[in-house]
Amino acid sequence: MKLDARIEAAIGSAISSAQGGSAPPRLAQALHYAVTPGGARIRPTILLSVALACGDDRPGLSNAAAAALELMHCASLVHDDLPCFDDAPVRRGKPTVHLAYSEPLAVLTGDSLIIQAFDILTRAAGDQPARALELVGILSRRSGMPYGICAGQGWESETKVDLSAYHQAKTGALFIAATQMGAVAAGQEAEPWFELGARIGEAFQVADDLRDALYDEATLGKPAGQDAAHARPSAVAELGVQGAIRRLSDILGGAISSIPSCKGEAMLADLVRRTAERMTPVAPVSSATKVRA
Amino acid sequence: MKLDARIEAAIGSAISSAQGGSAPPRLAQALHYAVTPGGARIRPTILLSVALACGDDRPGLSNAAAAALELMHCASLVHDDLPCFDDAPVRRGKPTVHLAYSEPLAVLTGDSLIIQAFDILTRAAGDQPARALELVGILSRRSGMPYGICAGQGWESETKVDLSAYHQAKTGALFIAATQMGAVAAGQEAEPWFELGARIGEAFQVADDLRDALYDEATLGKPAGQDAAHARPSAVAELGVQGAIRRLSDILGGAISSIPSCKGEAMLADLVRRTAERMTPVAPVSSATKVRA
Repeated sequence: MKLDARIEAAIGSAISSAQGGSAPPRLAQALHYAVTPGGARIRPTILLSVALACGDDRPGLSNAAAAALELMHCASLVHDDLPCFDDAPVRRGKPTVHLAYSEPLAVLTGDSLIIQAFDILTRAAGDQPARALELVGILSRRSGMPYGICAGQGWESETKVDLSAYHQAKTGALFIAATQMGAVAAGQEAEPWFELGARIGEAFQVADDLRDALYDEATLGKPAGQDAAHARPSAVAELGVQGAIRRLSDILGGAISSIPSCKGEAMLADLVRRTAERMTPVAPVSSATKVRA
Repeated sequence: MKLDARIEAAIGSAISSAQGGSAPPRLAQALHYAVTPGGARIRPTILLSVALACGDDRPGLSNAAAAALELMHCASLVHDDLPCFDDAPVRRGKPTVHLAYSEPLAVLTGDSLIIQAFDILTRAAGDQPARALELVGILSRRSGMPYGICAGQGWESETKVDLSAYHQAKTGALFIAATQMGAVAAGQEAEPWFELGARIGEAFQVADDLRDALYDEATLGKPAGQDAAHARPSAVAELGVQGAIRRLSDILGGAISSIPSCKGEAMLADLVRRTAERMTPVAPVSSATKVRA
């Protein structure tokens, strides 16, 4: 599929440029290890879809934006898997970076991927420095503090949690970045695209809670039952399995009606529907009795 | 002193904006903890001095660049102090972030500071998006892979080390960023300022090796004798104490002659001389017998 090929090529090129020159070889390998094989690449797919819906007049810049967003996401996975957070042994069906390479190299892999995300945006600016700078700004605001994925992860170190801030930062942030960066890369304003990203993010959070509660490790490619094990807030804990599935459907309906008027409106509605199908658990390997929360 | 006040105000404003909104409170506190009290703020001081020497026609942008550089430096200190790296208990005379706040919050503090560094550059762009984007590019290239401080730290996980690449990335990189970002913030080209930054970086590395070998923890504000303890390459191991002091003096002479022709040339030469005086160990608390390498 065309989008997949664009995304993989852009990620490959971002990693190659981080590995060039006289780079320390093991850290260079770890960067590649951390971003391959890809998961669903759902965030960059949304980003490029929005860019296409907006005309995609600077495809080089949209490709860089897609890769930057995925690098930031992969960086967060590498750091979240560290022993001091989830202590996860497996990610996408293979040993996590700190087990495959060492804990120091996992910290540095995350740091390097974060930085490389910004670097590739500057290299892809071409004749549009203002657009590229706005992309840097959106990515940084949805990754750092106080609204980004770092803030989301930070809430897990608090005794009293602002649940709405937690969810929007932890999961929603990079979906908001996806829709807004897609629009900005194609020369459109960011603001009208906030709601679509936020709603897809909410849907993803509910779907992730469902998968964590219903699937086993072999199906997930990472440890299952982590929400219950770490006593994390979850839609399944709050609403039960059927309630969470209904909520997912409601949110996705809202996402579709929030799509700003543009040439590619119908295509985007279709993307949200297909994403919803991929998200919704249809064949849980374990029974619902696995739900501990 | 005027430069100090500009730097502290810019850092304070960068941290405030990361703490705003509905940020998780402990991570928000940890960000402030990690950047205060400042060390010598030597990198942002060099940056602003170069900007002034080049006319400093956009002081808001130079201030943001100075803060961005210091945030990146502080992020690297927080991550380097982690148990999986130096396992340092003390930094700038107080407990390291992972001891004061927890290891998860130390990882997130480093990540958030890195991201905030880029964010403040986008916010300070004003009418100069191309300059701000170039600042993002220089900072990212001197922080990440393959040439930045992440690469430098990455070399410490290799069995065979490219010493020249190691030193330039580990210590030199942020000094190159300092001189180049200062010039670019003031509308000048980056390239002519590479050598001054690289030479100050070399000098700093030699001075740091000397301090690590000669001083004790109380004087350093962090554990001493770490190069020998971790069997790291060091100028003292290679040249002895007197040889390293001579080398420091040679490098600083080269730094002064490398200053590009500009209005503030004499002021910059004076800055290098003052920096040299601050760097050179004059009153080692322990005797030279402490040198173990």
